[in-house]
Amino acid sequence: MASNTGNPGETRPIIVQKYGGSSVADAEKISTIARKICDRAETGVSMVVVVSAMGDSTDELIDLANAVSGDHPPAARELDTLLSTGELVTSTLMAMAITATGHPAVSLSGQQAGIRTDKTHGSARIADIRADRLRRELDQGRICVVAGFQGLSDNDDVTTLGRGGSDTTAVALGVALKADQCEIYTDVDGIYTTDPRLVPTARKLAEIGYDEMLEMASLGAKMNPRSIELGAVYDVPILVASTFEDVPGTLIHGGDYMMEVRRAVTGVAIDRDVSKITVRAVEDRPGVVGQIFVPLAEAGVSVDVIVQNASLEGLTDVTFTVSGGDFERALALTKEICSEMAQDVAGNRGLAKMSIVGTGMQNGPGYAATMFAALSKAGVNIEMITTSEIRITCVIDAEHIGEAANALHNAFELDQAGD
Amino acid sequence: MASNTGNPGETRPIIVQKYGGSSVADAEKISTIARKICDRAETGVSMVVVVSAMGDSTDELIDLANAVSGDHPPAARELDTLLSTGELVTSTLMAMAITATGHPAVSLSGQQAGIRTDKTHGSARIADIRADRLRRELDQGRICVVAGFQGLSDNDDVTTLGRGGSDTTAVALGVALKADQCEIYTDVDGIYTTDPRLVPTARKLAEIGYDEMLEMASLGAKMNPRSIELGAVYDVPILVASTFEDVPGTLIHGGDYMMEVRRAVTGVAIDRDVSKITVRAVEDRPGVVGQIFVPLAEAGVSVDVIVQNASLEGLTDVTFTVSGGDFERALALTKEICSEMAQDVAGNRGLAKMSIVGTGMQNGPGYAATMFAALSKAGVNIEMITTSEIRITCVIDAEHIGEAANALHNAFELDQAGD
Repeated sequence: MASNTGNPGETRPIIVQKYGGSSVADAEKISTIARKICDRAETGVSMVVVVSAMGDSTDELIDLANAVSGDHPPAARELDTLLSTGELVTSTLMAMAITATGHPAVSLSGQQAGIRTDKTHGSARIADIRADRLRRELDQGRICVVAGFQGLSDNDDVTTLGRGGSDTTAVALGVALKADQCEIYTDVDGIYTTDPRLVPTARKLAEIGYDEMLEMASLGAKMNPRSIELGAVYDVPILVASTFEDVPGTLIHGGDYMMEVRRAVTGVAIDRDVSKITVRAVEDRPGVVGQIFVPLAEAGVSVDVIVQNASLEGLTDVTFTVSGGDFERALALTKEICSEMAQDVAGNRGLAKMSIVGTGMQNGPGYAATMFAALSKAGVNIEMITTSEIRITCVIDAEHIGEAANALHNAFELDQAGD
Repeated sequence: MASNTGNPGETRPIIVQKYGGSSVADAEKISTIARKICDRAETGVSMVVVVSAMGDSTDELIDLANAVSGDHPPAARELDTLLSTGELVTSTLMAMAITATGHPAVSLSGQQAGIRTDKTHGSARIADIRADRLRRELDQGRICVVAGFQGLSDNDDVTTLGRGGSDTTAVALGVALKADQCEIYTDVDGIYTTDPRLVPTARKLAEIGYDEMLEMASLGAKMNPRSIELGAVYDVPILVASTFEDVPGTLIHGGDYMMEVRRAVTGVAIDRDVSKITVRAVEDRPGVVGQIFVPLAEAGVSVDVIVQNASLEGLTDVTFTVSGGDFERALALTKEICSEMAQDVAGNRGLAKMSIVGTGMQNGPGYAATMFAALSKAGVNIEMITTSEIRITCVIDAEHIGEAANALHNAFELDQAGD
């Protein structure tokens, strides 16, 4: 829904922008962005701006929380309110800076922006957006600066949306306001075919489909997968672009109006922080896998790739990956769970996931073969394989990330624009 | 009202404590105070703890606000939300520290504590306290840590209560919860007969009446007068004591159960930051004074002592004092107002107010005479005089504060306990 201009019947398009922590790291950067926002508003659009906490301020708050908590982990409810202050600081400063530049502006906390969530402190999910106040402020010609990353639960407690939560705030507000576009400004200038630090010929994509971006985001690209999912479900186009460099970014949108000629493989996603846990010689009967994974899920361990080997004499091996941060806890828990039902539990750190992603893959054969051949030729051993309709993932030793990324980028000719 | 212990019919006394910014300046101090709070809770009382922002954090936020605002003063609404984050940080950290020490605790923002205010951003007044949630948390055995200095207006915007606002939060919560005592912990260890830095024989008072403390607080003592007023109206005893030193503080309470034998003069209050504006030869007819002071009030200038000299040939001189911070603005505005109705407007900085305060003065004569004689003997010239029922104030040159304070302290024998 476009916002009212005050003149009956006349409406303006709505743009939601999001600026990350490095973009608003100090007063000078905030003032610079405020000018850009005002320039954009002058083109006749209604603006909602979502901001993250300034620079390292979130880490400083976490340090304080750990300092006062001693051996106890800080309560998630308290940590949420504490961390939410970082975004409140940025949102009020940005509203002041925009006002100083000459455009009326108002800051809104997550609560004031009507963002209601479930009660999962630390990684709450948005349940509802009550956007009345936002609409009222927009209709009065104000730029609304919303504190990202935060919402309010039905207990009237502040919640946070987890890592990358401000992206989710921005896209969710875009959905609620039926915005014309959601723009994520960051310290990278778009989505690349793979990590340009590893592969010098990596190419910036002008556009990418929601599904492909979702796979890329889940697999290491610096965007919150939930925000992409939201954009996809409600068809809000998302532009990823550089905050300070004036160069074209990457537009994430529905596949039906892709202008670039499609190729089968769009990019190579890299996830560096992978660990593997193998449960050996577990009894191969219904329900056994559940006995392992239900307690892990209840303990909040996010299990990623799961591979079960073919059964041998009624016994089977189950291997799964978890992120490096969860590794110690997951390993201890798995050993405890499997102490009587498996022969052995072993763990490995220092792995990585290399994935090729592309909507086109679902219609053509041979992509897996090409991927395995390229990795083999580069001397990279594959430890695990998993696939989705538009993705093939290999788990490899993290030491070989560079060779693997270059080999795959070359094998699928990602340095060349689609022809 | 005492809080429920969970056992029907059994209740515990309620204590409200407040810790100022220097008491919670770093993680270590917060942990130290958390232990003291837990020890106190173990004695079987229900505890509400009000905290200020850590150390200089408020000043740092104000610097940021000025940096992004350029020549414009930051909008008061935005500044209020910005500054309120300082107390949110302390309240969540304190709740974590108390929990780590072993007692269940919960932080509450001003809003969550039900503190509703009017819409005067920057110096809002508490309109109502909806203490349901506080009572619920106390009944569940939690220590409630409330972010001081802040509330919520009917617009659902965060407001702040002005300088010393956390004192007001504490006493107002004490009133709402019918607390047994409100305790203000700070970097001084009580209320003295006068400033001990000026008068070495200054003596700490064991107790003081609300009225006397209100005069002392209005006249330079480091407490928020509004908090004293609230305590007086609802008869909540207020203890002022040192955070880290374990020495007796001063109890502010109703006069009827004063244990110390009363003397006429309780203390000498000193206000250092006084300026004087004199309007000469203004027409002496009804309404003239209003023409001067109504515009000053509308401009937010707080006028203090006002003296009007006897009329001479239909003309009169009006002199009034303002705080040093308001001086330039007040002088310019008064010149503008009086350009056609007075002969001349003159201003003086560098003055101070010396006041003797004591409930006993209302029943006895001669205190003014003793005061004037003591100042005269000390060579201190009196520029203006004003009195209330329990106070006599002289405006003097700030250079003579030391001599004046010692002279008055001696003249009224304040170095000796009441006999």
